[in-house]
Amino acid sequence: MIRIGIVGYGNLAKGVEAAVRNSADMTLAAVFTRREPEKVHIADPDAAVCRYSELDCWAGKLDVVVNCGGSAADLPLTTPEIASRFNVVDSFDTHAKIKEHFAAVDERAKAGGNVALISVGWDPGLFSLARVYLNSVLPEGKDYTFWGRGVSQGHSDAIRRIPGVLDARQYTVPVPASLDAVRAGQTPDLTVREKHTRECFVVAEEGADLEAIEKAIKTMPNYFADYDTSVTFITAEELARDHKGLPHGGTVIRTGTTGVEAKDRHTAEFSLNLESNPGFTGSVLTAFARAVYRLSQKGETGCRTAFDIAPALLFPGDPLSML
Amino acid sequence: MIRIGIVGYGNLAKGVEAAVRNSADMTLAAVFTRREPEKVHIADPDAAVCRYSELDCWAGKLDVVVNCGGSAADLPLTTPEIASRFNVVDSFDTHAKIKEHFAAVDERAKAGGNVALISVGWDPGLFSLARVYLNSVLPEGKDYTFWGRGVSQGHSDAIRRIPGVLDARQYTVPVPASLDAVRAGQTPDLTVREKHTRECFVVAEEGADLEAIEKAIKTMPNYFADYDTSVTFITAEELARDHKGLPHGGTVIRTGTTGVEAKDRHTAEFSLNLESNPGFTGSVLTAFARAVYRLSQKGETGCRTAFDIAPALLFPGDPLSML
Repeated sequence: MIRIGIVGYGNLAKGVEAAVRNSADMTLAAVFTRREPEKVHIADPDAAVCRYSELDCWAGKLDVVVNCGGSAADLPLTTPEIASRFNVVDSFDTHAKIKEHFAAVDERAKAGGNVALISVGWDPGLFSLARVYLNSVLPEGKDYTFWGRGVSQGHSDAIRRIPGVLDARQYTVPVPASLDAVRAGQTPDLTVREKHTRECFVVAEEGADLEAIEKAIKTMPNYFADYDTSVTFITAEELARDHKGLPHGGTVIRTGTTGVEAKDRHTAEFSLNLESNPGFTGSVLTAFARAVYRLSQKGETGCRTAFDIAPALLFPGDPLSML
Repeated sequence: MIRIGIVGYGNLAKGVEAAVRNSADMTLAAVFTRREPEKVHIADPDAAVCRYSELDCWAGKLDVVVNCGGSAADLPLTTPEIASRFNVVDSFDTHAKIKEHFAAVDERAKAGGNVALISVGWDPGLFSLARVYLNSVLPEGKDYTFWGRGVSQGHSDAIRRIPGVLDARQYTVPVPASLDAVRAGQTPDLTVREKHTRECFVVAEEGADLEAIEKAIKTMPNYFADYDTSVTFITAEELARDHKGLPHGGTVIRTGTTGVEAKDRHTAEFSLNLESNPGFTGSVLTAFARAVYRLSQKGETGCRTAFDIAPALLFPGDPLSML
């Protein structure tokens, strides 16, 4: 049995916990939290709940730690820290800082004799894998990534910070005409606005200036100003009833050609339609934790990404049956 | 430069030749044929054309041999033979005999100190990879594979063997209602007939008994009897004008759940729409030849499948840019 530790206990950690319970070759040893452990109620009755500061006491008792912290402030500090003591997996997704994170984690993992795997999930993660496979087999071509329809938590949070807003849910939605054109093998140059629209469902305080809120959303730089954005005001009850889930998904499409003089055109697509973004991402992290364990058993050390993982390492059974 | 040898010079070999020309890190050294070399005219002016029996003379001059023979009679003999002298890649696709082929190739590759990679293409190959990744990250679920719309050469050949038939082209077509149901996340149990239909375009000899040909096709066991099959008689000119390509494609879909008590449902899909089946398959074989070369440079030996290949090994550049 692969003994798993989970750091954090938010939605993603709960996804990992469920995936570990659904994996016959894994067991959850402990959840590590910065909250008061007695206030954290995990689903698995056999696992411990401990303070994050006690993690080091678990040396020799955990095969892989799945770090479920946030990319902005948490993972850049904690993944290197954990990598010096344990094999570790994270879902670091700040694309611009991945090389820096890789270097920091690699140094600590090598020093500690551990294997670390960063930036796993569906994007970065499965979508990145689709891009590498498809760029390798179709070197002449063009990539497109569309996200949604799904909830962007970063954009929902940005709306919640506007004065007068009580709660909000933002959906990222691909523009159907653009998606159809790319699927049909066309290779348009698409602006940000032509790729996605943003749908906002907002609960306002009683008496709030709705026009001002709508304007504040639609003109917000980076988040909304470059998109066609719709704002719909709803009640707290409607939000709880119709928007409680965290669905997401998207699609990676590569169109390209083979041949030297006479060219043939090909289109490849990988798409996901997820009822629960953290549930699915947690399941991806868990499969990659299996690969980390197996690499560690072979005596490997240092940082890896999904690109370094032979797919057979993820699969619990005999992969030849999948050919 | 990775020096490539190609065995055979049919459509697939021509696809490999074009892909090698489109790869900056590869060069075609020679094509090996069982025909008279002077009668084989390859596109690359700098490569040699030699008899297959001369392959051994090229020891030390080829980094990877791409074996483009057929699965039925050729690859089971030649891939082990080549593996004892060279690194080799093939597209062996007789699913029921893959383990046997693997064992034969593995023994010879290990004895010769070479790396061999079998069963690469899009199915088996990229579709197999999609199945392994998706089964690993969604262990609770159900797989579906649909093929087409595309030309099945085996089924076209079967029609050509019927007395009175001059030429034929058979298209395998997914049943739209079944594909839509699976894409929508349903998990029906589908019969052979419910998954695919077969469209046959047939050129008959003058005066041939068309009713007898149509009946012979529609009742042919294994190939057509279990399917809804349509037969359309056309002229040789129409066949040459409208059906000269070898398009193919298909889609792998996995629907599954995460969660323990409350389950969330997810759907993942990988699909290909190929204007030229041999052109694309040749490009896939070429990317995997790069991986074989790199594994051999590391000192590895023995037989591999696509599942054993870390995706970074396929990619000519820095894969971190793809995250």
